[in-house]
Amino acid sequence: MNETSLAPLPPGSVIGILGGGQLGRMLAVAAGRLGLRCHVYEPGSNPPAADMAHALTTAGYEDEAALCAFARSVDVVTYEFENVPASALDLIESLVPIRPGREALRISQDRMTEKDFLTGLGLRVAPYAAVDDLAGLEAALNQTGAPAILKTRRFGYDGKGQVRIKDIAEADQAIADMGGSPSVLEGFVDFSAEISVIAARSADGAVACFDPGQNEHSDGILRRTTVPAALPASLRTDAVLLAGRILNALEYVGILGVELFVTPAGLIVNEIAPRVHNSGHWTQNGCVVDQFEQHVRAVAGWPLGDGQRHADVVMENLIGDDMDRVPELAAQANAALHLYGKAETRDGRKMGHVNFVTPLG
Amino acid sequence: MNETSLAPLPPGSVIGILGGGQLGRMLAVAAGRLGLRCHVYEPGSNPPAADMAHALTTAGYEDEAALCAFARSVDVVTYEFENVPASALDLIESLVPIRPGREALRISQDRMTEKDFLTGLGLRVAPYAAVDDLAGLEAALNQTGAPAILKTRRFGYDGKGQVRIKDIAEADQAIADMGGSPSVLEGFVDFSAEISVIAARSADGAVACFDPGQNEHSDGILRRTTVPAALPASLRTDAVLLAGRILNALEYVGILGVELFVTPAGLIVNEIAPRVHNSGHWTQNGCVVDQFEQHVRAVAGWPLGDGQRHADVVMENLIGDDMDRVPELAAQANAALHLYGKAETRDGRKMGHVNFVTPLG
Repeated sequence: MNETSLAPLPPGSVIGILGGGQLGRMLAVAAGRLGLRCHVYEPGSNPPAADMAHALTTAGYEDEAALCAFARSVDVVTYEFENVPASALDLIESLVPIRPGREALRISQDRMTEKDFLTGLGLRVAPYAAVDDLAGLEAALNQTGAPAILKTRRFGYDGKGQVRIKDIAEADQAIADMGGSPSVLEGFVDFSAEISVIAARSADGAVACFDPGQNEHSDGILRRTTVPAALPASLRTDAVLLAGRILNALEYVGILGVELFVTPAGLIVNEIAPRVHNSGHWTQNGCVVDQFEQHVRAVAGWPLGDGQRHADVVMENLIGDDMDRVPELAAQANAALHLYGKAETRDGRKMGHVNFVTPLG
Repeated sequence: MNETSLAPLPPGSVIGILGGGQLGRMLAVAAGRLGLRCHVYEPGSNPPAADMAHALTTAGYEDEAALCAFARSVDVVTYEFENVPASALDLIESLVPIRPGREALRISQDRMTEKDFLTGLGLRVAPYAAVDDLAGLEAALNQTGAPAILKTRRFGYDGKGQVRIKDIAEADQAIADMGGSPSVLEGFVDFSAEISVIAARSADGAVACFDPGQNEHSDGILRRTTVPAALPASLRTDAVLLAGRILNALEYVGILGVELFVTPAGLIVNEIAPRVHNSGHWTQNGCVVDQFEQHVRAVAGWPLGDGQRHADVVMENLIGDDMDRVPELAAQANAALHLYGKAETRDGRKMGHVNFVTPLG
């Protein structure tokens, strides 16, 4: 399908969403607010997005008949995670446009390709090298120095598929841990803060970025995002311009999450995610139009909305037993709860988030 | 069911909603945000609420088997309109609690009962008298003066079931227009503004009111609500206290809409609605917790949330051909669109609304 051929979708149109997790759920709510319908495609049972969607297909990404029926039932397809198999995307794309486009997916699906792309744009990333075996890892460690992190090139998320290497004596074990997956070694960066820019680009090329947020992780999972980030104005501008450069280079349509390290020498790109992003959940209570609606607007060929920030927000993820805090949070002033309707609470599972809101002025 | 027996519903619980219109749709979204599920009961096909609900029953209010199955599948029942037949409510209430309670419904379903209730609380209403026939109307006109409005006691909404009487010569025609429905004659009130208070009361008796909004109607339909209302601080306080009195008298649980006339002699109650209210839609973009979530919280036995206003908002309904404005509104800064996903645009049909938001400070 010709990407530029899609006129703005009128209310009543159907957006297909690959993946039925909480991001899909919140996308479906945003789409509904604009009178658009969502059809969710998800291999797993009882996906969080289903309750908020017009239609649900429960099928695997290898099920060609289901993929075709899904693609034929929708006006455009988007996705809530970047690890959709290429074969499924090929089939869908033969029938209906995919937004954001395939190039963004291709690049972000492979950490090595992503880093090459970013450095090719003149952006800075941590020292990195491809690793396929023990000899490669030893050579890479010489390049990046130790400690360093070995990550699978593909299919990693929330700290999964990663192993930290303190010195070269751990190389053997690290290679064993990766189980033969093509990997990339990343050197450590001396950063003072992690921030992210949630950036939007519309089909006609307009760009709008939300104010950068400051992120705190533990165990590889985002715990808290604070806006505004404690950041000099010049770096704030740098962050937004840098995100805009990535969007334009990809002719991107939708929301892109750009994670950055703040270092004494400026901003270093950690990674990009071609989808709505956990660190953008604060926008639900900080802006007239949030990241989910902004993504839906872009994907549907609508103009971008008003993403100006009207509040300071601290977003905290509710992970596993954090759900025990819900009764207390429900009674707390300035606290906006967002729960995902997941039936089962598990350690490390994102169950919801809370935005603590302080209006500006 | 004992109304006080309901503990706070945990996430995953199901709220039954009688009525599947846009109010039900926005209630379902708010419930989903708290991890609660909604089961919508609606006689009509393709109700706007269905896309955002966990389950839908399409059946009439006389279908006892469907009503029982519905009631048994949910943890509490609420409603998005006040004209649910009493027989259906009786059946449901034998199986599951209804919130807001039956007393509020009984009173608001009959304009005469409602006015008697309000005056019994010491609140002021327009001059009124019950009318059953021509002789009664002539007597009533002597009491209220002309012009006046003859309204059906039951089942009126959005200006339907009403006829304006300029002088006594029109009495005959007015009685004919009402087709024998028991009616109430309302005298005119010399008001400078119409305002409304969207008031919430939780199951444990806590009360929270949103800031009063100022309403503009045409053809009996709400066109615009502006917050803050142009109102002296003393009247603002009066309005909120008055709403609180109604809530407490009814031992109300949920959102109540209270429409008021501002007159030189103070506030006069126009009518009350035991549900979320069109004039409260501004709260979606003006408060951390909006009227829909506040209603869900109350109905689910949760504490009320933070309804402080953080923005000035003008809410405009999109009625019928107003949908032609959507492309322009979508591109307008400060405009938050809320469309209801109705397939067919008709004259006088509420298709959506837009909130024009100006953050405070």
